[in-house]
Amino acid sequence: MLGASSGEAFVKVERVAAALRLTLARPSRRNALSELMLQELELHLSAIAEDRSIRVIVLAAEGPVFCSGHDLAEMRGRTEEEYRHLFARCTRVMLGLRRLPQPVIARVQGLATAAGCQLAAACDLVVAADTAGFATPGVKIGLFCTTPMVPLIRVVPPRVAMEMLLTGRVVSAVEARQIGLVNRVVPADQLDEAVEEYVLAISQASATALEIGKRAFYDLAEIPEVEAYQKAVELMTQNALACDAQEGIGAFLEKRTPHWQHTRPHFPAE
Amino acid sequence: MLGASSGEAFVKVERVAAALRLTLARPSRRNALSELMLQELELHLSAIAEDRSIRVIVLAAEGPVFCSGHDLAEMRGRTEEEYRHLFARCTRVMLGLRRLPQPVIARVQGLATAAGCQLAAACDLVVAADTAGFATPGVKIGLFCTTPMVPLIRVVPPRVAMEMLLTGRVVSAVEARQIGLVNRVVPADQLDEAVEEYVLAISQASATALEIGKRAFYDLAEIPEVEAYQKAVELMTQNALACDAQEGIGAFLEKRTPHWQHTRPHFPAE
Amino acid sequence: MLGASSGEAFVKVERVAAALRLTLARPSRRNALSELMLQELELHLSAIAEDRSIRVIVLAAEGPVFCSGHDLAEMRGRTEEEYRHLFARCTRVMLGLRRLPQPVIARVQGLATAAGCQLAAACDLVVAADTAGFATPGVKIGLFCTTPMVPLIRVVPPRVAMEMLLTGRVVSAVEARQIGLVNRVVPADQLDEAVEEYVLAISQASATALEIGKRAFYDLAEIPEVEAYQKAVELMTQNALACDAQEGIGAFLEKRTPHWQHTRPHFPAE
Repeated sequence: MLGASSGEAFVKVERVAAALRLTLARPSRRNALSELMLQELELHLSAIAEDRSIRVIVLAAEGPVFCSGHDLAEMRGRTEEEYRHLFARCTRVMLGLRRLPQPVIARVQGLATAAGCQLAAACDLVVAADTAGFATPGVKIGLFCTTPMVPLIRVVPPRVAMEMLLTGRVVSAVEARQIGLVNRVVPADQLDEAVEEYVLAISQASATALEIGKRAFYDLAEIPEVEAYQKAVELMTQNALACDAQEGIGAFLEKRTPHWQHTRPHFPAE
Repeated sequence: MLGASSGEAFVKVERVAAALRLTLARPSRRNALSELMLQELELHLSAIAEDRSIRVIVLAAEGPVFCSGHDLAEMRGRTEEEYRHLFARCTRVMLGLRRLPQPVIARVQGLATAAGCQLAAACDLVVAADTAGFATPGVKIGLFCTTPMVPLIRVVPPRVAMEMLLTGRVVSAVEARQIGLVNRVVPADQLDEAVEEYVLAISQASATALEIGKRAFYDLAEIPEVEAYQKAVELMTQNALACDAQEGIGAFLEKRTPHWQHTRPHFPAE
Repeated sequence: MLGASSGEAFVKVERVAAALRLTLARPSRRNALSELMLQELELHLSAIAEDRSIRVIVLAAEGPVFCSGHDLAEMRGRTEEEYRHLFARCTRVMLGLRRLPQPVIARVQGLATAAGCQLAAACDLVVAADTAGFATPGVKIGLFCTTPMVPLIRVVPPRVAMEMLLTGRVVSAVEARQIGLVNRVVPADQLDEAVEEYVLAISQASATALEIGKRAFYDLAEIPEVEAYQKAVELMTQNALACDAQEGIGAFLEKRTPHWQHTRPHFPAE
């Protein structure tokens, strides 16, 4: 499925050098995370995880809305099993972004609401146009944004997260940067340029080091500091032994450009 | 005790539509959290938790000080058992605010210090007048603000929390907003208006969804992300099955105003 | 080793009243955390922990760079055991700062990178000159800043921490304050004055209360809120019984200056 761009697909795929861009491409439905959209995303993420030639992902969207969350037309009158199935699939996509060895940059050009806000929150970095906005308005339809809250409260300070969740108000791109949901805000016509700067910086790094680092980032935040240090010492040790680190340290000392081999890292047994 | 306003009480109670306002009303003692004040608060919180017609709480105070923390006149020369009893009661009040099914908005008009700062930190949202201030100055009397720190370090970034705790300095309302302790700062004469905006937004939402959401907010922040998602999927499933969600989704699709039933949510077994 | 200033040492030690200043003094090597530098720091921290006459530590550095992290000249072609040994020693120093009963203030006058950025992040407070900068650029040499990340992600919001780690970019002192890595930024020629204000405030407090508070600060952030309250109630009880609290409360009620005894606190059994 990777590298091909099917006219029928809800998610477009473009490969540019070491970067892969996934684009939600159903603007007529506000890029809602329908069952089919989620299925496509899940398949793409599985394939990307195995393709080590891809070193960074950009998650973008077509039209004025980034993503409006679940498709409400699919959400009425379902059985308990169907709801559970839908939310579980959505969760696999969100956790899939976290678990990719490659960094994922959300390119948010418009409104991101409910599970669409979650989608941005679940990426590693977010670049937003000044036309973007973020909201978790589930409370207005009697369905609290409980799953969207999972990554949201991990990036946004508690008070403002609580306010977003209780009132559903839209946070502007500029405010989203102040509260730590977004890394950078630019005028809409400079959005690709800003994304490209991150893509470039990340593409130049060792994939070995990035894979170790991204996984450690989320793991080490969830355990006590002393335990985190124990794990970190083992990870640093394995990272230092890897050829990319030896090459990188050598290149630094010899004032030359490093040549990465991007070998898969060795992770200590858990 | 609810709905009645006794002249002798340390805590005044006013009911306005679906909102309940609790007012610390012992300004001559800077609204200190004396044993009696804590007892009253504890009783009110128990009653509120059972009264589903109340949908949002405002915690306010009379006089120039919001709350000065423990009553130091009661704090000298007590036995170990007495201290433990006092701090345990205070903790029940603070955790009682967290555990209420209804959102709690602190209306902070003046200085909130030590356990008074904790009281604000333990609420779900905080609206402050520009005349408000926040401090944890226990260190100056040889009694570190250890219990106040529990909710404080959960809303304020670590560096600034450490500085507040080590130096006891007063953080202005404007700074309190920057550091995430306060949601909104307004001139003193617009304080009620600002509180009312939150009250209105919250009152219009489904109590079912709010109860699920508030509980989940604090629960899901304390467990690893994967586990949080598992719980969230179950909560979303139960929430989606509830009549308020079915009504809310229907009303959204049919572009009409939803009519909530506010039934008590079904929580999955822990 | 304390109180003596040897011309050969990599770490200079100065005692001024109740404060101790440790200065990284190998500017020709950008104050790199070589094995010898780490050894010296470890010995100093052990001695400081036992010397209750010291009530606050300032960690400073000579030259234009605060600390450049590990000494890369020592990092090439080592065995697995040697790497593990080095990272474990570095971790003991970082955790040693956290575990000192006394507060530690980093005085950052220049660039702090990789484990040098970690060193600042591991202190309790950070005062920075406007000439300071912070970066975790390990990714550029194929060695992700995994150990530096442990304290960094505990003080800096996730998005900006991820950006620092993935791109290696330098965060200015002003931005470092906005993101919570630094408490205060001042022009370089006012750095000592700003540090001195914190030293003074901390020196005037009861060492008993400070020791209870600093330990609790890091402990209570890592456990669920209900459990944190249980521990906090016991700590408050023991703190209230200590002579410094009785003296402090009495002095407050009698409007006089307290006289501290600085006795070692009694910690409840874990």
